[in-house]
Amino acid sequence: MCKGMEVKICLIGMGNVGSSFLKLLKEKRENIIDKFNFNTKLVAIFEHDGALINSNGIDIDNLLMDHSNLRKNKYWISNVKAQDLISTLEIDICIEATPTNPETGEPGLTHILEALSNNIDVISSNKAPFYLQYNKIKNLADKNGCLVKFEATVASCVPALSIRHNLIGNTISRIRAILTGTSNYILSRMTAEGVSFSVALKEAQELGYAETDPTLDINGYDTAGKLVILSNELLGWSKSIEDVSIKGITEITPHALELAKLDGYVIKHLAIAENDNLLVEPRLVKRESPLNVQGTLNIIELQTKYAGSIVIMGKGAGGFEAGAAILNDLISIVKERENLYN
Amino acid sequence: MCKGMEVKICLIGMGNVGSSFLKLLKEKRENIIDKFNFNTKLVAIFEHDGALINSNGIDIDNLLMDHSNLRKNKYWISNVKAQDLISTLEIDICIEATPTNPETGEPGLTHILEALSNNIDVISSNKAPFYLQYNKIKNLADKNGCLVKFEATVASCVPALSIRHNLIGNTISRIRAILTGTSNYILSRMTAEGVSFSVALKEAQELGYAETDPTLDINGYDTAGKLVILSNELLGWSKSIEDVSIKGITEITPHALELAKLDGYVIKHLAIAENDNLLVEPRLVKRESPLNVQGTLNIIELQTKYAGSIVIMGKGAGGFEAGAAILNDLISIVKERENLYN
Repeated sequence: MCKGMEVKICLIGMGNVGSSFLKLLKEKRENIIDKFNFNTKLVAIFEHDGALINSNGIDIDNLLMDHSNLRKNKYWISNVKAQDLISTLEIDICIEATPTNPETGEPGLTHILEALSNNIDVISSNKAPFYLQYNKIKNLADKNGCLVKFEATVASCVPALSIRHNLIGNTISRIRAILTGTSNYILSRMTAEGVSFSVALKEAQELGYAETDPTLDINGYDTAGKLVILSNELLGWSKSIEDVSIKGITEITPHALELAKLDGYVIKHLAIAENDNLLVEPRLVKRESPLNVQGTLNIIELQTKYAGSIVIMGKGAGGFEAGAAILNDLISIVKERENLYN
Repeated sequence: MCKGMEVKICLIGMGNVGSSFLKLLKEKRENIIDKFNFNTKLVAIFEHDGALINSNGIDIDNLLMDHSNLRKNKYWISNVKAQDLISTLEIDICIEATPTNPETGEPGLTHILEALSNNIDVISSNKAPFYLQYNKIKNLADKNGCLVKFEATVASCVPALSIRHNLIGNTISRIRAILTGTSNYILSRMTAEGVSFSVALKEAQELGYAETDPTLDINGYDTAGKLVILSNELLGWSKSIEDVSIKGITEITPHALELAKLDGYVIKHLAIAENDNLLVEPRLVKRESPLNVQGTLNIIELQTKYAGSIVIMGKGAGGFEAGAAILNDLISIVKERENLYN
């Protein structure tokens, strides 16, 4: 896919994640040429209302100076859709960074399938397509010999998915994780200050940790989606979000947290994959457990057969974090392709 | 190096790590053939007083049933040395698992250099050669196009070294780590129970967490060696252990820990790589910091430019843990070689 030392990409969705990725790509351009011996040519940027297409390469520097440049650019075409044009572009890698649609996965799912159908490798920060239609995406990728990477979908730049390569000789038997900063922030505050759920939620919203509509975070659906992706990638399962038993944290009271505390426990909103089962629910966790992380951190604990539990944690959200995850995926795709074709 | 689907290896040192690795190799043999399409043929096992050499492949199952079989085996040759025979063996990968010699790195260093000189890929669980002569080893490997992997040398099976591949598009600016279970156990106990250093040390020895001679752990030398390897691999430095400023934990008193506690801190034996400096010393750490891990766990915190700090932790010692790290290295070498030659 990667012809010579120029890798042609398109970006679908230039929100916070997409533009952060472009900023990183700009900042690291020289470094990537130096260290990995390839240059990236951005051929198209798709937005919901049109596209910027330039087969000679879009001037990222200019674009980033003024975001509104996108639609004023002479190469801007209004009212075209990515799904109709992907097949016409000569690109190596398609980057899907549109907002996730938890019910249908669209339009991301169609973008991903359309790219793969055209033998284009895919990187996605959009998670719903993967927790709704994991098998469909993977099967098409395999059939067409394409690579699909989506590190940003789970815990952002924390290498929660790619870590399977590092543990290739080991066996992972169980995953326990905290994958939504919002829930963890709320429970941490309720535990520390004894405030009610609604007060802690309001605080999280004021600080920008919770969405205006935090439903999918606090009812566990967002975490469940990430758990599906984690277990499929790390345990080799083939689940979708319908297979997850999901409970939220809205019923947790300061009293319950207080009772837990008396016996040395805290309550955490855990995602668990074990014995072919997936569940998301509030669980007691020993105060001194590594899973007792504070604030908005994400944490993933992998129980391994030969080396006990291996834990990885970090920031699970943020534009640059997701952008960095996409850049990791981009470089690793190019390296894999080089090995395959050189 | 890997000719077809049979990978020929030799093992130097059949202590706890070496024999744990062989047990794992036996247990995972079918799985490796199934999943990675290669079989491993063990051609030689070297011990300090001789070698078991069979070019048709040593029967691992039989050997593992009774450890004393090694020297009774009809292929056993007394009084030969690995360094004299490596060049005569037709092998793809040499696994160095002899005990580490902190002053000279020998005989491990010679084994590693001898293997590389003969274009043999190397896996090592022996760390001294890498903190004493990192550049010499790396340069020879590069010159001869050999792969050298040594995940087991730092935090055992916790992928502290290979994680650089997962963060390939990011920039790591600082490392802070706890790399010696012994020191951390002692400080944890002193903090929790207010006991003196010598009492906590005795306890650690009785529980088997500390060596009979724990000097290299508590004076920080062992940690310093691992820090050198970490910073060379993750930050691209070229340091040796002489470059590390090292302070031990023997001077820490229960009183100092108590004072720290009053202000919400604990004292941890940290390894820090930052601004071209390497240091190992007791440091104040906020009680709620991820670095405040208990007991014998190892933890590595990577400060990244684009995604805040990413933390990884797990058991830093143990035969099976090191064996699993060696097996990870083995499979990843074979996979890299396949890509290179297919």
